[in-house]
Amino acid sequence: MVTLLPSLAQARDAIVDYAAAIDDLRLKEWPEMFTDPCLYRITTREILQRGQPLSIMLCDNRAMLFDRVEAIEQANIFEPHLYRHILNDSRRIPGPDDALNLETGFMVIRTMMTGEQDLFLSGKYIDEIIESEGRVLFRSRTVVLDSSLVDTLIAIPV
Amino acid sequence: MVTLLPSLAQARDAIVDYAAAIDDLRLKEWPEMFTDPCLYRITTREILQRGQPLSIMLCDNRAMLFDRVEAIEQANIFEPHLYRHILNDSRRIPGPDDALNLETGFMVIRTMMTGEQDLFLSGKYIDEIIESEGRVLFRSRTVVLDSSLVDTLIAIPV
Amino acid sequence: MVTLLPSLAQARDAIVDYAAAIDDLRLKEWPEMFTDPCLYRITTREILQRGQPLSIMLCDNRAMLFDRVEAIEQANIFEPHLYRHILNDSRRIPGPDDALNLETGFMVIRTMMTGEQDLFLSGKYIDEIIESEGRVLFRSRTVVLDSSLVDTLIAIPV
Repeated sequence: MVTLLPSLAQARDAIVDYAAAIDDLRLKEWPEMFTDPCLYRITTREILQRGQPLSIMLCDNRAMLFDRVEAIEQANIFEPHLYRHILNDSRRIPGPDDALNLETGFMVIRTMMTGEQDLFLSGKYIDEIIESEGRVLFRSRTVVLDSSLVDTLIAIPV
Repeated sequence: MVTLLPSLAQARDAIVDYAAAIDDLRLKEWPEMFTDPCLYRITTREILQRGQPLSIMLCDNRAMLFDRVEAIEQANIFEPHLYRHILNDSRRIPGPDDALNLETGFMVIRTMMTGEQDLFLSGKYIDEIIESEGRVLFRSRTVVLDSSLVDTLIAIPV
Repeated sequence: MVTLLPSLAQARDAIVDYAAAIDDLRLKEWPEMFTDPCLYRITTREILQRGQPLSIMLCDNRAMLFDRVEAIEQANIFEPHLYRHILNDSRRIPGPDDALNLETGFMVIRTMMTGEQDLFLSGKYIDEIIESEGRVLFRSRTVVLDSSLVDTLIAIPV
């Protein structure tokens, strides 16, 4: 697979589209936004600071991402809710030469089907973004949460 | 009236200025940001999903928008408060050819005069934006709220 | 000192980097982002509306900013916590000709070491930004808080 570096604007569009797809519950589009294999990891700032290898969620290929979506849509084991991502600007950070390496602060508001809303999550995305066959894809997305209290509550991907 | 398509940057400036005008309580500028006639509608995601024609607020010309502002400034029937809009990037979406069609996720923090703050609203704007006589204007702005619980509380336009 | 006007994109990068430095607790970088002398002031919308000269925090040179950082890092008198800034687009506003004058709405989420999170602050930055010797610096940053209730709680700079 030949991969190229996307422009900052292309990568930003992918980051914004990712958030919109999840917020609109178009979850089947989510795995398609990654390379295969890929890395999707949710962890916390505290875990990273301690240098621990722990993850709240870890998927390293598209099939695992699809499984996650199917579990959400079929098993329906969680109370229905929606996300609203709010994103900061994306900043270039050091990383592998063969990807565009960006960091993006974010927060997520959660709306329950009862209408109740809360500030659900905040943190930053650390992304390796590439372009392949005309598509801009996440090769690696690490979600670093600010708080360490939220792990069991995350059903929908962040 | 000859209308043109604004650039994405021009339309984005209008979206940001709109939020700033409301957050600064420069409400008299609000109707001037729309064409006449226009469409300003507040609804919810649930209503749209059901395909219902219901609105929490609906104005289809500038005079109605001005009436709304006058009611807020004169009748003073609500407890004074302020908004702070936080906006996501604007994304192009399908829509009429003769307007720039954008979707913009947002949240609003409300600050009461007592100083208390809360996460008041989240949702997305669905906009048709045009340029006329050198001005960038909203021909249609639909506010789609994530929650269905907030209708009676909205005094200041979103 | 010869100062130049930065471009809007350069100034925006400085505004985003400022938020990231604080959110990552790289506080020693904070004073370096200002000119010397400078103006860093935290006040409230209510104080400004009344035309009062009051400030919740006021520093007019880098040494004062460094003192502030040292007090935070050494005295450790407050319960440890982290910020997450979420920024709106930056808008040009009137101001001195020899600086780029920008206004930027923002909110801050606070995460305590226990993991609890709250919506901590909202408001806007009013900035005078200049370029000197290839660096983009804040000559003046006024933080205008939406609420008047928060003064005693602000330990980390906003």
